[in-house]
Amino acid sequence: MSMQLETENGLDMGFSALRKAYQDGSATPESVMAGIRERAADYQDHNIWIHLLTEAEQAFWLNKLKDKDLASHPLWGIPFAIKDNIDLEGIPTTAGCPEFAFTPTQSAKVVQQLIDAGAIPVGKTNLDQFATGLNGTRSPMGACHNSFNYDFISGGSSSGSAVSVALGLASFSLGTDTAGSGRIPACFNNLVGVKPSIGLLSATGMLPACRSLDCITIFAYNTDDANIALAAAEGFDATDGYSRANPFDNQARHYGLRTGPLKVGIIPAHQLKFFGDDSYQKAYLETLDLLKAQGFEFQEIDYAPFDEIAQLLYEGPWVSERYVATQPLIEDNPEAIFPVVREIIAPGGKPPATALFKAQYRINDLKQICLAQMAQVDCLLTPTAGRHFTVAEMLAEPIKHNSELGYYTNFMNLIDLASIAVPTVMTENDMPFGITLVGPTLSDRMLMSIANRIQQALPLKKGALDVIANPSNTTPVGNNQTIDVMVCGAHLAGQPLNWQLTERGATLKTKTTTAPVYRMYALAGGPPLRPGLVLNTGLGDEENGEAIEVEIWSMPSENFGSFVAGIPAPLGIGKVQLIDGSSVAGFICEPYGIEGAVEITQLKGWRAYLASLS
Amino acid sequence: MSMQLETENGLDMGFSALRKAYQDGSATPESVMAGIRERAADYQDHNIWIHLLTEAEQAFWLNKLKDKDLASHPLWGIPFAIKDNIDLEGIPTTAGCPEFAFTPTQSAKVVQQLIDAGAIPVGKTNLDQFATGLNGTRSPMGACHNSFNYDFISGGSSSGSAVSVALGLASFSLGTDTAGSGRIPACFNNLVGVKPSIGLLSATGMLPACRSLDCITIFAYNTDDANIALAAAEGFDATDGYSRANPFDNQARHYGLRTGPLKVGIIPAHQLKFFGDDSYQKAYLETLDLLKAQGFEFQEIDYAPFDEIAQLLYEGPWVSERYVATQPLIEDNPEAIFPVVREIIAPGGKPPATALFKAQYRINDLKQICLAQMAQVDCLLTPTAGRHFTVAEMLAEPIKHNSELGYYTNFMNLIDLASIAVPTVMTENDMPFGITLVGPTLSDRMLMSIANRIQQALPLKKGALDVIANPSNTTPVGNNQTIDVMVCGAHLAGQPLNWQLTERGATLKTKTTTAPVYRMYALAGGPPLRPGLVLNTGLGDEENGEAIEVEIWSMPSENFGSFVAGIPAPLGIGKVQLIDGSSVAGFICEPYGIEGAVEITQLKGWRAYLASLS
Repeated sequence: MSMQLETENGLDMGFSALRKAYQDGSATPESVMAGIRERAADYQDHNIWIHLLTEAEQAFWLNKLKDKDLASHPLWGIPFAIKDNIDLEGIPTTAGCPEFAFTPTQSAKVVQQLIDAGAIPVGKTNLDQFATGLNGTRSPMGACHNSFNYDFISGGSSSGSAVSVALGLASFSLGTDTAGSGRIPACFNNLVGVKPSIGLLSATGMLPACRSLDCITIFAYNTDDANIALAAAEGFDATDGYSRANPFDNQARHYGLRTGPLKVGIIPAHQLKFFGDDSYQKAYLETLDLLKAQGFEFQEIDYAPFDEIAQLLYEGPWVSERYVATQPLIEDNPEAIFPVVREIIAPGGKPPATALFKAQYRINDLKQICLAQMAQVDCLLTPTAGRHFTVAEMLAEPIKHNSELGYYTNFMNLIDLASIAVPTVMTENDMPFGITLVGPTLSDRMLMSIANRIQQALPLKKGALDVIANPSNTTPVGNNQTIDVMVCGAHLAGQPLNWQLTERGATLKTKTTTAPVYRMYALAGGPPLRPGLVLNTGLGDEENGEAIEVEIWSMPSENFGSFVAGIPAPLGIGKVQLIDGSSVAGFICEPYGIEGAVEITQLKGWRAYLASLS
Repeated sequence: MSMQLETENGLDMGFSALRKAYQDGSATPESVMAGIRERAADYQDHNIWIHLLTEAEQAFWLNKLKDKDLASHPLWGIPFAIKDNIDLEGIPTTAGCPEFAFTPTQSAKVVQQLIDAGAIPVGKTNLDQFATGLNGTRSPMGACHNSFNYDFISGGSSSGSAVSVALGLASFSLGTDTAGSGRIPACFNNLVGVKPSIGLLSATGMLPACRSLDCITIFAYNTDDANIALAAAEGFDATDGYSRANPFDNQARHYGLRTGPLKVGIIPAHQLKFFGDDSYQKAYLETLDLLKAQGFEFQEIDYAPFDEIAQLLYEGPWVSERYVATQPLIEDNPEAIFPVVREIIAPGGKPPATALFKAQYRINDLKQICLAQMAQVDCLLTPTAGRHFTVAEMLAEPIKHNSELGYYTNFMNLIDLASIAVPTVMTENDMPFGITLVGPTLSDRMLMSIANRIQQALPLKKGALDVIANPSNTTPVGNNQTIDVMVCGAHLAGQPLNWQLTERGATLKTKTTTAPVYRMYALAGGPPLRPGLVLNTGLGDEENGEAIEVEIWSMPSENFGSFVAGIPAPLGIGKVQLIDGSSVAGFICEPYGIEGAVEITQLKGWRAYLASLS
């Protein structure tokens, strides 16, 4: 049934391959879902699913697709898996604990939005019970096994969600992330793992682990697919106390390919930990070398404050949130809880509120130190995990090794950062390795655009499938956070209106000239005296104009609007050609403004004109 | 010594009067400070000061003024009082508890910044001990008495800070606000009380009450003075975990006079509480009538979610923050604490972290409901207090009446709002009454600009002094949060580039025409087809042009910059004249763009031109 998706390179479950197959008729959602059920049978020992939808259950969702057209539904016929702490209407939510299970009458808001966009649920996936763990072995349904090597852990707690995508049983999936559960399994299964900013995706219909920190996450083969899924999943939800509006600069349209120079913060060697895993250490160093060759510039940061924050997640009072999330079960029927999970959660009823306030104060103080370091770079880059354990190793030391898995991940949500796990190289043992990019809250699309660049540069397969995963490289985006503006008169450095730039946080980027096709006029009126710059197209003129001295200032995007709004007629902001052939936002002049003005083109700049007056 | 500041209207301690007196030589900082010490002696029974600086201590600070010039120091020689839970170098900080006292070796960051701007500290003021109270009677130094009537409470906890300014013993003062301590005393003493957004003013060097909620506040006679003091006091401080950068739109330059239509949220009658104080009820209704006559439009909101939040402040686990702030004293020497304060704080060691998390979840859920209501109006307006109590009444029922004082104030910092208390009318008993304006976080200057308008409309005295307090009316500001932009072609509603407006959250404000002085051209190129609008000044022309059909869209300011940056040449954004005589940001065209274009002025609009093509 699913043969039509197998090329000479193997099975391709990526979004564009599926859409193409649907458009050319070589596949239907029915044939794809049947193929998934068929192949899933081969992986039963992996313990991926808590509830794989039956053919009849799938038919319910496939039937809803009939009212929708492919063209206007970005996820039409795209199969997705759902971590079993997120509600799907009519299917039990267990959180990996049968005694806790209930059957929701409506889907989680994010799930519903994905279905509305055309996506088809495949099933509910295995997880570390109550999302408490980073390893994938803490489930009464059995440990979830790695997609590349059965002996290794899948990572967790979103274990089945990652493995299902890596093995082509879904095209993307939903996980959750409190300590790193949306990133660690991405690393161990060669996937992109988007851990959005807290509140970007509604948590309505998700069982909390630590409600103040939890995020729904997305596993996908590449950043293109992740962006499409994220765009359908995100959105403000007033019924979720932690939901936030997404600012303009972080919307889906601002995902692309991050080009240009990049300064990336890395952890100094003495603060790196690989817990004895030489293959991961080598893979990390190889990754840095490869990225350096791609124009990434590295700057060391001090990881100590991040690490101190990370340790507070399990050693501090945040365990009380897990206790609240499992009440009353943890009090009334503790034996129902998986032993190692119970061992972690049970003490959570004890810490006093005073301890939590003190820990929150400490976190806030440390956050300032972390953000100050992050302000100096475009993003941070860390190994996603320091070591990949076998299932046997993990079961032997379940608390210690889990804590080691969180060394690079636990700090993230406590200080409200955005991050994305991205695969980079295969280790010498042919196992996947990856890094995590970290940015300030609501920098999700910026991080995804950098991850896109990494995927362009370091092509890998889609999960464990034999198909290349590169995202598109057709939509370059610059740094959205500043806008360059050309000034040529009263706004030049030292001139009377320059404060309008500096008060908006603009900085002088470069001094240059326009292309040699401009005429400059001293306008009537003032003070302040102001010039008008006029492009001379040369029609009927001997001379085309001059290269006029200008300055380029770089201004935070959010402040540029008020700057423009304050410019009086006849001036305005349009596009100006520079001597290097580029075009930049800058001062232009309406035609009528030139009436009564004095041409000063021959002086080649405003400063020379001012000098000529004295 | 202070006679030079007394006019026929009485003593004027406002900033501009003092600066004028310094400039014309009719006063010196030395003479002003001597006058304050002289007059302070008359008010000893008011228990305003915990430590009034001696002449020698004042000389230390006056001496530092010699290195500074008045012109470049906005607070040069301006005396200010400091609540005694904020550090002043070399003077004990007691928080109203002698057993707790210590002598700081450096001033609080905010105090230092004010001194750097030229302000002169007068002394440390009395307060409800550990800032626990809203009434001003909870101090072992004695109850602080009201500036208008000795029998009445001053309000608290920033009691001495408010009374000192109201009586002309300082020109402004610093308070703190957790539950309402920066607003209630402003109301009872006829002052403006600015409760800034959390983190706008550094808390470094301030003793916490509830560290996650506390704000340093400013009492002043009017919004002009408050804005000057706030500008000197504010600023990001990386050593304060709760400090935040101030966005451009909230900076001092954006304070002015809020003009134009205003929609203000008010509490419905059945949710108002005056606790039996008819004079306050009448004053509130009179205030609404007066503001209605000034163009304020009122819209009722549901106060229930605000009230539920408010009750959590003292009845929920936030008391644990007060416990942390007084550790170890509360454990080692509880008898050192003022009895009613001890009664409130002592249980704070008991609540578990689970209770705090649950309360934080509830607060976040309620916050969404509150913010959704606030998004429909420019700001909320509430009575600052529902009743003014006598000292005797307060001492008889210290917990109950204090809770009544917080009915309109306690919610504010728990959901991170900005607010300002502003006096409006005198009651029938000749006592001050005031309202509080409430806005989203970091809307401080917007609120102050509305408060300015209220002070213009309802002139009152400066505190208890016989001098009018009106702030300036020379700097009108619009609503800084949106920018109106005129579109006339492909950005019109339904046209191909209209999405560039809607994706940025812009909404159609009005359809109108330009002034009848424009020519319109269909530019070469496309798609999309685009017009060029050219102002015809009429020099040498029979016809001036036409009134061209346009639309005005209202766009969030922070998104306008990216919109402008995306406009290709020869178009740009300048200023366009409308039929009503006003001028608005809108599309203009460079002179060269008209070359090769087809004039379509006679069609009077782009839609007519498009229709003519088909």
